[in-house]
Amino acid sequence: MSAAGVLDCGRDARAHRRGPTISTRIERETMPTPDTAPRIDPASPPDRLLMGPGPSDVHPRVLRAMSAPLIGHLDPAFLRLMNEVQEMLRYTFRTENRWTIPVSGTGSAAMEAAVANLVEPDDVVLVPANGYFGDRMANMAARAGGDVVRVEAPWGRPLDPDDVRAAFERHRPRVFGFVHAETSTGVLQPELPALTALAREHDALVIADTVTSLGGVELRVDAWDIDAAYSGDQKCLSCPPGASPLTLNDRAMEKAGGRATPVRSWYLDVSLLRSYWGEERSYHHTAPITNIYGLHEALRLVCEEGIEARWARHRRVAGALKAGLEAAGLSWLPDDACWLPSLNAVRVPEGVDAKAAIRWLLAERGIEISGGFGPLAGRIFRIGCMGESCRASNVLALIAALAEALGTQGVRIDADAGLAAARAALESEGAAGA
Amino acid sequence: MSAAGVLDCGRDARAHRRGPTISTRIERETMPTPDTAPRIDPASPPDRLLMGPGPSDVHPRVLRAMSAPLIGHLDPAFLRLMNEVQEMLRYTFRTENRWTIPVSGTGSAAMEAAVANLVEPDDVVLVPANGYFGDRMANMAARAGGDVVRVEAPWGRPLDPDDVRAAFERHRPRVFGFVHAETSTGVLQPELPALTALAREHDALVIADTVTSLGGVELRVDAWDIDAAYSGDQKCLSCPPGASPLTLNDRAMEKAGGRATPVRSWYLDVSLLRSYWGEERSYHHTAPITNIYGLHEALRLVCEEGIEARWARHRRVAGALKAGLEAAGLSWLPDDACWLPSLNAVRVPEGVDAKAAIRWLLAERGIEISGGFGPLAGRIFRIGCMGESCRASNVLALIAALAEALGTQGVRIDADAGLAAARAALESEGAAGA
Repeated sequence: MSAAGVLDCGRDARAHRRGPTISTRIERETMPTPDTAPRIDPASPPDRLLMGPGPSDVHPRVLRAMSAPLIGHLDPAFLRLMNEVQEMLRYTFRTENRWTIPVSGTGSAAMEAAVANLVEPDDVVLVPANGYFGDRMANMAARAGGDVVRVEAPWGRPLDPDDVRAAFERHRPRVFGFVHAETSTGVLQPELPALTALAREHDALVIADTVTSLGGVELRVDAWDIDAAYSGDQKCLSCPPGASPLTLNDRAMEKAGGRATPVRSWYLDVSLLRSYWGEERSYHHTAPITNIYGLHEALRLVCEEGIEARWARHRRVAGALKAGLEAAGLSWLPDDACWLPSLNAVRVPEGVDAKAAIRWLLAERGIEISGGFGPLAGRIFRIGCMGESCRASNVLALIAALAEALGTQGVRIDADAGLAAARAALESEGAAGA
Repeated sequence: MSAAGVLDCGRDARAHRRGPTISTRIERETMPTPDTAPRIDPASPPDRLLMGPGPSDVHPRVLRAMSAPLIGHLDPAFLRLMNEVQEMLRYTFRTENRWTIPVSGTGSAAMEAAVANLVEPDDVVLVPANGYFGDRMANMAARAGGDVVRVEAPWGRPLDPDDVRAAFERHRPRVFGFVHAETSTGVLQPELPALTALAREHDALVIADTVTSLGGVELRVDAWDIDAAYSGDQKCLSCPPGASPLTLNDRAMEKAGGRATPVRSWYLDVSLLRSYWGEERSYHHTAPITNIYGLHEALRLVCEEGIEARWARHRRVAGALKAGLEAAGLSWLPDDACWLPSLNAVRVPEGVDAKAAIRWLLAERGIEISGGFGPLAGRIFRIGCMGESCRASNVLALIAALAEALGTQGVRIDADAGLAAARAALESEGAAGA
């Protein structure tokens, strides 16, 4: 073998396998490649417009940031990036909480991190019954050993603070979890400060699910006195899923640090994570480096736009969607007082097969929206208006395409009135402050 | 506002903020952007050669695959990709196990998934004491409610099957976890079939940590009768971390499915995950879409190379590293019989400050290697030779740079003898089968 041949290992060896050389021929004889390897074509994901409940479209700058070669998760250059991500997450959550980090998993991992760390065995945990994610919180709290009680409200309605007060008085929960933006119903929980004040009165910790609000809908963790909030990165932050925001205030960290029993998940134990994200920088687990690159750039976009301007954009653009589809003849499941701009729960008109319409939109127009599930299966369309997907052009395209999809089932809505109303709403300066 | 102005929302609005227009001026008045947004520069990760314990270098094709725009996690096109990833993972694990999936997190999440699903409260769990990852397994098993017992062996030595037999007879464990490739010590556990046979005799389930072996070191899940194995994707698979391989055979799934108590983690509960990865495709959590794109391409590279050829490459290239550094005067912590090609534990020569040498290599030569921890702190260098990083050119560069790093501390090793020995090893056809 020539000296050059010495270097024909690894990456280069594969390229040479098509035109055999001495070195590859020898290798085949001594260690034959089995013929059983699957032959799979390269992934060719289709071009989609993502207007479902997440993921949302990703800005090209974020994709480009994620194509950078890796550095080690303990490299000083990576530690700097982590600090910057934390700083920008604090800005986005509107908090000064030191323990503001991306959890190494998708939104449900951040949710479980919040619940598993703050719920100790036999803690009474109050959760809402008005949507799927309240149920999931209940499930996680039970697995953490908590004693789960519920505050009732129908799917499609927010919690009533009076009901929450009654539940506090009856059950005396240690932890109160609620959903700021319920992705399953398109309901925004208003009056958050009233809810957190109840928790304070009763010396309970508050966990807020902000998966579908962070970065798109007004959220003020510190001003609203929220102890713990978690989110996903593939919703209003428009980042590929995999690094999920979590913030804990001192009160929450004190409870997590003073537990009598260890957190039931090693991976999500914040007392271990803090030694990685804190001053010590000691190894806990390998961070999802590429996802952190992406989140860094996605958060830079948030900072450039400004968080309040971003909330206003979501209200304005999703407001145009709402004005448009209402003018076309459709209606929203929740009342206007709890309308969630980032996730629009639109009632399915009589006689429409929602699943078929959703499939048609994806297959024929490349637009992803979603349907309802649980008690809302077949009854609502869930139309996301999140982050990069929240753009006027998308709203206009969606109104036209949805009218077309319903039309294939013989159901007519007034697409032209819808487009006109959407355009008017986008033009109206008043809408910016609506 | 002009009709064109209607479309100036979302992405476009930001570009316009530098040159104010009527619409942005109005927006500023009604909803001023706070001046508190952090100003963070774009991430500019330095160029590194990753030869530590992971992550390893990523092939450009994998990075390119990850730059594709997102599709939804329930999109039929994504479900096809998932099937392909599962098929290629089975090939790489050398298994027919149906429940072979990427867990949505880094390697420790897959580890916790294996442990948390297979350990029920009060199960006796036998784990090894000869490295850090055995300790972590113990920690996770205890959090799952298990009663942890240990089989002893010093750090740097593999388990002795006789000791394992004695531990089985003494403790009667229900679950036996061991580490195939111990990243903290560079020890390969040989004689795996002897260990799994012991577990069969005693009707226990076997969990194998294959984080640093999968895709780089011979591993045959089915032939060796391993019930559950987990791994990371950023080691010998050379994929950015975030989607971590896990395989469970029917015996393991039967135990997971027949538990008396729920798994303590909702996120990692395989009985829930199976409804997403199985026929039903029902929503559990949002998969890390971009990481799956990357893993798909990384596994295609494995399939193109052929798994046995890949094992041979790791032995040949890491063997040249070993021959080279030994000729230069250094020595390995483990005996040759349990040498782990993917992670080389090299003894730190007398008088060398290991941390300073590691810092010098990173800062001055852009090469990442790592040190020991726990009882091995300051005593070993851990040099990875994994996946795309496992290339002849890297081995030669590392030998030269390490000699230089030690030289800055006044310790001389014979770099020229090392390079000559490495070159000779790379040229020797016998090395391919060594």
